[in-house]
Amino acid sequence: MSGSGYTVRPIGWVESPLALPEEAPKQGDEGAPDAWLVFDEAMADGLRDVEVGSELLVLTWLDRARRDVLAVHPRDDRSRPLTGVFSTRSPDRPNPLGLHRVGVLEIDGLRFRVQDLEALDGTPILDVKPPLGRVEER
Amino acid sequence: MSGSGYTVRPIGWVESPLALPEEAPKQGDEGAPDAWLVFDEAMADGLRDVEVGSELLVLTWLDRARRDVLAVHPRDDRSRPLTGVFSTRSPDRPNPLGLHRVGVLEIDGLRFRVQDLEALDGTPILDVKPPLGRVEER
Repeated sequence: MSGSGYTVRPIGWVESPLALPEEAPKQGDEGAPDAWLVFDEAMADGLRDVEVGSELLVLTWLDRARRDVLAVHPRDDRSRPLTGVFSTRSPDRPNPLGLHRVGVLEIDGLRFRVQDLEALDGTPILDVKPPLGRVEER
Repeated sequence: MSGSGYTVRPIGWVESPLALPEEAPKQGDEGAPDAWLVFDEAMADGLRDVEVGSELLVLTWLDRARRDVLAVHPRDDRSRPLTGVFSTRSPDRPNPLGLHRVGVLEIDGLRFRVQDLEALDGTPILDVKPPLGRVEER
């Protein structure tokens, strides 16, 4: 039924001091260090309107996650009951897509310095979107 | 540099009265009809904790989008200047991942009726996540 699937291709990569999962905070606003989003040159035209100070939603491919897990203890806290992964933000899930809200601190060509990103160094970036504001402002 | 990419596999599909792009509102909270998320049986264990009344983030594969577009007129309004796709919510983008915030109205086994989903009928679902609440409540 699911057929062969679809192929996602990285548009860039994360550069971060976070190298190991156990070093990373559970979410970006829980103490993540500043990181860089480093984009492929082919994406320049799509990124030209991003500004310092804006908020972005970054979608990543959590390449160190497990895809065969359907239930986890939330936040790796074994005192919490096993919970279906679709009710958690666990990186382990059938399609390990990461969703991160970050703030842009600096732009240097195709390198964007951001705050509040808990993704590990080398994580592939798949997409960037603006958060949705009020309907009248879209 | 981007290599061969990664394969995403649908975990379910959207059933919606919206069949054509021109029928769909630009965003789900701009008049989308109720729709159903219909999940693959293999995903049941991952979905067991979703409840009626909850809000979900749904990630989809916008299978009718163009992947070779890097700049668009926002909201198809040609009076607005061409804008890099990563500063818009255009479905046309290198990896056409849709991000939708919906409310769960009804659960019938692996069929979830939701409000505020603008995705077209037949759109593959890739992931479901809870929105992030306050840090203390995670």
